Amino acid sequence: MALYVYKFGGTSVGTVEKIQKVAAKIKRARDKGHQIVVVVSAMSGETNRLVELAQHMQLHPNEREMDVLLSTGEQVTIALLSMALEALECEARSYTGGQIKILTDDSHTKARILKIDKERLHSDLLEGKVAVVAGFQGVTNEGAITTLGRGGSDTTAVALAAALEADECHIYTDVNGVYTTDPRVEPNAQKLDKITFEEMLEMASLGSKVLQIRAVEFAGKYNVALRVLSSFEAGNGTLITYDEESNMEQPLISGIAFNRDEAKITVAGVPDRPGIASKILSPIADNNIEVDMIIQNIALEGNNANFTFTVHRNDYDNALAILENMREALGAKEIKGSNKIVKVSIIGVGMRSHAGVAKKMFTALANENINIELISTSEIKISVLVHEKYLELAVRTLHSTFELDKIKT
Amino acid sequence: MALYVYKFGGTSVGTVEKIQKVAAKIKRARDKGHQIVVVVSAMSGETNRLVELAQHMQLHPNEREMDVLLSTGEQVTIALLSMALEALECEARSYTGGQIKILTDDSHTKARILKIDKERLHSDLLEGKVAVVAGFQGVTNEGAITTLGRGGSDTTAVALAAALEADECHIYTDVNGVYTTDPRVEPNAQKLDKITFEEMLEMASLGSKVLQIRAVEFAGKYNVALRVLSSFEAGNGTLITYDEESNMEQPLISGIAFNRDEAKITVAGVPDRPGIASKILSPIADNNIEVDMIIQNIALEGNNANFTFTVHRNDYDNALAILENMREALGAKEIKGSNKIVKVSIIGVGMRSHAGVAKKMFTALANENINIELISTSEIKISVLVHEKYLELAVRTLHSTFELDKIKT
Repeated sequence: MALYVYKFGGTSVGTVEKIQKVAAKIKRARDKGHQIVVVVSAMSGETNRLVELAQHMQLHPNEREMDVLLSTGEQVTIALLSMALEALECEARSYTGGQIKILTDDSHTKARILKIDKERLHSDLLEGKVAVVAGFQGVTNEGAITTLGRGGSDTTAVALAAALEADECHIYTDVNGVYTTDPRVEPNAQKLDKITFEEMLEMASLGSKVLQIRAVEFAGKYNVALRVLSSFEAGNGTLITYDEESNMEQPLISGIAFNRDEAKITVAGVPDRPGIASKILSPIADNNIEVDMIIQNIALEGNNANFTFTVHRNDYDNALAILENMREALGAKEIKGSNKIVKVSIIGVGMRSHAGVAKKMFTALANENINIELISTSEIKISVLVHEKYLELAVRTLHSTFELDKIKT
Repeated sequence: MALYVYKFGGTSVGTVEKIQKVAAKIKRARDKGHQIVVVVSAMSGETNRLVELAQHMQLHPNEREMDVLLSTGEQVTIALLSMALEALECEARSYTGGQIKILTDDSHTKARILKIDKERLHSDLLEGKVAVVAGFQGVTNEGAITTLGRGGSDTTAVALAAALEADECHIYTDVNGVYTTDPRVEPNAQKLDKITFEEMLEMASLGSKVLQIRAVEFAGKYNVALRVLSSFEAGNGTLITYDEESNMEQPLISGIAFNRDEAKITVAGVPDRPGIASKILSPIADNNIEVDMIIQNIALEGNNANFTFTVHRNDYDNALAILENMREALGAKEIKGSNKIVKVSIIGVGMRSHAGVAKKMFTALANENINIELISTSEIKISVLVHEKYLELAVRTLHSTFELDKIKT
């Protein structure tokens, strides 16, 4: 007998029929004697419908009221799923974020969980009931409704699993696990049986949409065994966990991630003196533009430096205009950039203990005549920026170079 | 400066545009310096949509979960209306039934209000904020969400008005007040400026859909001045209040009410002995059939009685079958009935102090050759059952007989 927290996203509970299938799956687990807590999102489409209503009301909808509005989406799902469970003679009880006291700070629309009251859930579980909890929402000390931001239901599930010391937290979704790369780009992509938190974090931050970064961080911090599975297909999915074993059998690289939303900007020929980076990035940050990679090089001629950073493509024009306006103040020779680039990364805790990974990567890309525009590395990741026309070729080349198509599943 | 509780029903907040109009109306009142608490229902159609979803899940949806589900309807409206008010620079704050602690018993889907926490509303009002409260819902001591049953938003509004000692409670609806009778039947029907609680109760119980009986009872009990107005037309509507003045100028009759859903059943020739009424009505009650009028007469021949009662037309066949089955056990000669009858009533506190009202009513109907099938009276009401073909004629005849078309408005 184990205690599981299951999380079903919006597409998994998007229709009456899907909710009934989810109920049947939960009942099977309960009938095996497991204790089950279920976290659900709003039915797919519902959140967008509510956001649209709000935008008709107010240009920038009041954030407190936005949370009151959006939290109804999950509340509908918990009631419907509980009914579906009861219809299968599986006792269930629904809880909103407020009822279970998922205490958050008061940052409306992007609140952080502070504490969870687990007493009520424990007593339900002891009575053999399934507890059905609204994801994505919480409540402040003053009783105001908050939401955790899009994808917050994953975070709710992990936080509950941590609080209840669950054996595993299952994230049910429309894919059956984490793959070595996106199968739409590389048909030989393989499902991973296991991946470490660190690798998963890098995968998520690089655009793999399977899990929210916050949820993975949370799971890593509280050592919650996280498993990604398909809602409607059989299979064990992918377990995300600490790499506690020796890495003898650890593959060098676990996955190839990529992100199409990149744009880079170079401030060329700025005086190489302290404070220049902050001078360049402050106005960018002041305009709420997020910066990803940052590289500073000394230029070949004179006492000048070239400063390059990447932003989301949507922010490219804006960032370029801001810097163009202050080019003279910065003493820069030129502001240039490109929004036709993508980021391709290899990820793996295995590279910690293996030299030559970078060389192998760059050689493979060079052999295909793919020009690398920027490189950035971390302990378990190497990312390169390349022209977007090379994306598929780069991903497939690296996937076979690191023998990811040969991983046993 | 006054404190008002406004209530807007589902059709008044049925679209984005209507919610914006409601917001404009509220802002005008606030700008005059009034303190405003607003109670809203779910957008029209929303409750039906949710009920339908529930019925797909479970044949008889779990009532606790039904309340979790249905309460989202009002929660959406409070958020949207608060946003619309903020867009007009009218500070607002929304509250669910749970947040404002509208404490109820735990009779899910038909809970009764026990207590209201008025502190939070008071502090909002002192800060000049409009408080926007979800109607129809409350919370138990254990934190479970409850609903008050359909039309419960009226009750929420009156309960808040009582708790806050509001100057008036305005029920905004799609009619501009209470009429002497249904204008679709009698085009000369006049809007009443004033009506007493007792009269309004009789009007409501006889099918006038303007207000819920529970809300009128509540208002009467706590002496809340209740006003029925149109959401989108100008005008002072109808004030429902105690009849504290002398009745010198009180019209004899305030209104003609009618109900088309009537059916009558007669158990003829039963032995006239104690306990017979209970013997007849017990199996009816056991089948959850509600009985309205009850009349017992001694039959002309022998020691027998005729026992007649009315039920809702939907229950007619069922009630008839039940009694037919036990005719012999009752010792009755015959069970007969009709579902082609309607009830027409004249209502007025004025009739307390005026003799001859009944005679005037019966004479007027007789002059039109309308046969009266049953009569029942209360202190401020006389009801007759007539064949349904006479409904319009009876209503118009009584309307002019009691000079209701001459009431000044």
